[in-house]
Amino acid sequence: MAQQFETVGILAKKNDDGVRQTLKNLIADLQARNKHVLLDEGHASAHDGVDTCPRAELGERCDLVVVVGGDGTLLDAGRSVAASATPLLGVNLGRLGFMVDVLPADMSTTLDDIFAGDYIAESRLMLCAQIERADGTMQPEQFSAINECVIRNQAFARVLDFDTYMNGAFISHHRADGMVVATPTGSTAYALSGGGPVLHPGLNALALVPICPHTLSDRPLIVDADHEIEIRVADTLDGAALFTSDGQVSQPLGAGDCVHIRRGAHDLKLIHPPNYDYFNILRNKLQWGRGQKLAHS
Amino acid sequence: MAQQFETVGILAKKNDDGVRQTLKNLIADLQARNKHVLLDEGHASAHDGVDTCPRAELGERCDLVVVVGGDGTLLDAGRSVAASATPLLGVNLGRLGFMVDVLPADMSTTLDDIFAGDYIAESRLMLCAQIERADGTMQPEQFSAINECVIRNQAFARVLDFDTYMNGAFISHHRADGMVVATPTGSTAYALSGGGPVLHPGLNALALVPICPHTLSDRPLIVDADHEIEIRVADTLDGAALFTSDGQVSQPLGAGDCVHIRRGAHDLKLIHPPNYDYFNILRNKLQWGRGQKLAHS
Amino acid sequence: MAQQFETVGILAKKNDDGVRQTLKNLIADLQARNKHVLLDEGHASAHDGVDTCPRAELGERCDLVVVVGGDGTLLDAGRSVAASATPLLGVNLGRLGFMVDVLPADMSTTLDDIFAGDYIAESRLMLCAQIERADGTMQPEQFSAINECVIRNQAFARVLDFDTYMNGAFISHHRADGMVVATPTGSTAYALSGGGPVLHPGLNALALVPICPHTLSDRPLIVDADHEIEIRVADTLDGAALFTSDGQVSQPLGAGDCVHIRRGAHDLKLIHPPNYDYFNILRNKLQWGRGQKLAHS
Amino acid sequence: MAQQFETVGILAKKNDDGVRQTLKNLIADLQARNKHVLLDEGHASAHDGVDTCPRAELGERCDLVVVVGGDGTLLDAGRSVAASATPLLGVNLGRLGFMVDVLPADMSTTLDDIFAGDYIAESRLMLCAQIERADGTMQPEQFSAINECVIRNQAFARVLDFDTYMNGAFISHHRADGMVVATPTGSTAYALSGGGPVLHPGLNALALVPICPHTLSDRPLIVDADHEIEIRVADTLDGAALFTSDGQVSQPLGAGDCVHIRRGAHDLKLIHPPNYDYFNILRNKLQWGRGQKLAHS
Repeated sequence: MAQQFETVGILAKKNDDGVRQTLKNLIADLQARNKHVLLDEGHASAHDGVDTCPRAELGERCDLVVVVGGDGTLLDAGRSVAASATPLLGVNLGRLGFMVDVLPADMSTTLDDIFAGDYIAESRLMLCAQIERADGTMQPEQFSAINECVIRNQAFARVLDFDTYMNGAFISHHRADGMVVATPTGSTAYALSGGGPVLHPGLNALALVPICPHTLSDRPLIVDADHEIEIRVADTLDGAALFTSDGQVSQPLGAGDCVHIRRGAHDLKLIHPPNYDYFNILRNKLQWGRGQKLAHS
Repeated sequence: MAQQFETVGILAKKNDDGVRQTLKNLIADLQARNKHVLLDEGHASAHDGVDTCPRAELGERCDLVVVVGGDGTLLDAGRSVAASATPLLGVNLGRLGFMVDVLPADMSTTLDDIFAGDYIAESRLMLCAQIERADGTMQPEQFSAINECVIRNQAFARVLDFDTYMNGAFISHHRADGMVVATPTGSTAYALSGGGPVLHPGLNALALVPICPHTLSDRPLIVDADHEIEIRVADTLDGAALFTSDGQVSQPLGAGDCVHIRRGAHDLKLIHPPNYDYFNILRNKLQWGRGQKLAHS
Repeated sequence: MAQQFETVGILAKKNDDGVRQTLKNLIADLQARNKHVLLDEGHASAHDGVDTCPRAELGERCDLVVVVGGDGTLLDAGRSVAASATPLLGVNLGRLGFMVDVLPADMSTTLDDIFAGDYIAESRLMLCAQIERADGTMQPEQFSAINECVIRNQAFARVLDFDTYMNGAFISHHRADGMVVATPTGSTAYALSGGGPVLHPGLNALALVPICPHTLSDRPLIVDADHEIEIRVADTLDGAALFTSDGQVSQPLGAGDCVHIRRGAHDLKLIHPPNYDYFNILRNKLQWGRGQKLAHS
Repeated sequence: MAQQFETVGILAKKNDDGVRQTLKNLIADLQARNKHVLLDEGHASAHDGVDTCPRAELGERCDLVVVVGGDGTLLDAGRSVAASATPLLGVNLGRLGFMVDVLPADMSTTLDDIFAGDYIAESRLMLCAQIERADGTMQPEQFSAINECVIRNQAFARVLDFDTYMNGAFISHHRADGMVVATPTGSTAYALSGGGPVLHPGLNALALVPICPHTLSDRPLIVDADHEIEIRVADTLDGAALFTSDGQVSQPLGAGDCVHIRRGAHDLKLIHPPNYDYFNILRNKLQWGRGQKLAHS
């Protein structure tokens, strides 16, 4: 039997004119289906007569959260909602995203399918990072990431020295602009632009992708996601490096600081339309087979 | 004063149904302009009442040669015609090419412009290769190339050992599937798929691009086109390697054989419509800025 | 309790002068330990008084097979022995290999450790490939591979069109020189030279690495090793393509032929010295941190 | 007739213990040859009895400047000295550099050669950059670079939108971490770590290398060094981008700011020992042919 989705949360991209009408249609559609709609507080004033909810509680109080926006909006929402195991459905605005894969025009039909139990549910592994300071104290704050954790130099001081470890075993010393530790979901984001491969979302693996490494043989390394990765900034660091998670949350790093990255306790739960096809999205986004032809004979 | 184009040669892609109608229109258009049309012999039977000409003589007997087909047809024609310094104009079929940049629909207007002297003339450097056998004898045959010369292993025996030299100075030893020596024109062809950069056509340079090198730091090398490049197959070669020029002409290489590659005595002369824009073609062909977006936030 | 290794097979690189003395020492050492030694038939004449055995039976009749040579010798041996689940120990000649990780000078000490049960046993996944002809008939022959299966164009005809599938789902159309499907073991071999990432040997994954793809966004794809990969040569193929396994066994492919690649029923069993450290070998082979420094300030 | 080098300037790496003894030996050697030695002010106190000179005047007052340190020290010195056309000789400390190519142990012999007129003189093109603010005002300050000019995003805000132009002609829009415009000298520095090719120092060309571009077909572009390159930051930039020259001088960039980069009016003049061999240094630094072997058979 299909999961029941009685309470539906809505979370949308902020400050985007295109969102307003889609949001209005979505609320009307859900109310017509007698769903209890909870709107993320940030959009409350704009839509009278709809119950609102702080973002941090959306996951706990809803059975499904619909995200209206781009992949970035879903990343942001996902990190808030994931701990509750509530699934997300992504409605894109304009362009198809990797994860926001429902067109506004197909929204109503897709909701028909989903409420009829006709959908594809998917779990995406997430990362959990914690920073151990140079003096050995572990910071209590945990950073979750859907796409990737990045350790990077500051823009001005160009190169960063750091060591990597897997389950405590030394991998290598690196001189580079930085290092990306990406999930399969994040393998098509920043890691790809840094020369990493595409990891199929069904693969339980992480990609370690050095950014602009000085050693030309310092290539992307793919490891099982159940291993813990450590990245330790060299003691010689002059100035500060930066840790970021999904490009949205950041923390400065000093000499000798170490970032511990492991698979998070919770996965991101996604709901896709029944015709969801990962490779079709990949072909579309990467314009594979779209006729890009070199000047061969 | 613009160059006069009284005798116009035509050379078209063989065995292509789409060519016939474009060819017919082109002949009629040129005849209506009182041009003397000379058709490449291969298409003679299909178009009565038009003088024909052996391909080898087209360059000498014509003031302009119109090529109807893809970049491959132009490569083939260009190597025949270049020695005469007769310019080529490329009419594409279906898809815009890097060099065949006139759409059939724009053919007549473009001819108006060109015969009025309103066009962009461009010289593209070509390569000239000669093979020195292991015993020191230089083969008399010269191979010209518009895109690139390639030295490659056979499909089965995977890796090739060879040495490269620039003006007699040793560059390096390589273990790889092969090596591409590309002109700026060829930099957007096979060399690009092997990891080489784009060379602007106005640059007097060659790109040496190793194919699948075992040494990960064996990166593309760009040198002035006035230097002679030598690629010497290792004495230990077991079997045969292959030399190809523009992917259309080939020659087996044995242990100790050496390919000498230098800038050819003649350039390829191209005629472009007055609105020709190299970067526009590049953006179009490589789909730059065409909305390929990674899953960043 | 450690596994008993009473019967020890030996398989060595052919036609290599350096092998003879190492082989002689190894036989003497094993006989002094009262082990039953079985020598691969190819080396029989050279070592009187040692029982010989056809290669195909070595795995079944031995408890351990020692390979003397390079990684290539171990690949060759491994495909013969793997089905018997008999582990291999690699003794290198000259240079440390990825898998042949015992130096001749350390051979005796390593045997002390191994016969005392002090060793690291490791399983490496292998591939099994089968060819389905264009008319739908599946060829009975199965090709096993430790490193990779490769589909490649012939040297002369440069580009190959083919489609890839995962468990029957269409991945993409490709125009390229070929495609490598590599195991984690093979990820540091040909696939790496083609731009693929390093896959940690503990990862249950395959790397699909296109060779010189015309579409610049056609990047390496990493999938779970339990998925079946199909590569179908386009119907338009003019001439022949080539399938190879570990670069040592090959088979021609025609238009419409399809190669099915899946995880093999047997793993390759390796025995390492107790101080085995994968990352140390990787750093050594790829010269990571070996002081390659770019000209930065 | 060889150039006379009567007044020799010395400029050394600061705060480096290894420098002191080499500096002392160098001064004694030059004084024994009756050369007039001028020491960069920064090292004055440490070496009594030697005339000192402000760095800015070293070029004008000397016939030759010896740089003791790494490539970074030479970059720093070169930008100060280049305008005077005074040549530099680089003495390295410890490791051979790309440009500091005299070992301390060979210093005296090399000076014998150089003062006997037996040396190789080389000109390396430099860059000159100027910033045009969004309101159209051109900043008076000119930034010279021996290696490269870089436009980069801030560490936190990951992606930068900008447009590139060559002599005013639009090249492309880019979404990336940044863009490197490198000289041939700089092609083996940061640009190489970002995926650019090696440009032979004799080539009059610049490499435009995008850093972590979102469009996977956004590849390095090589253009004639006599063209002016413009990089215009998008009007939508939120926050600040950064311009740096040789990684040593920097300037913030705002929305709509444009960096103009052209070949500088002066070249960097280098003096090499008579046995100087660029490719030998390249092979050494990139560890070409140094036995890095993948796990092929």
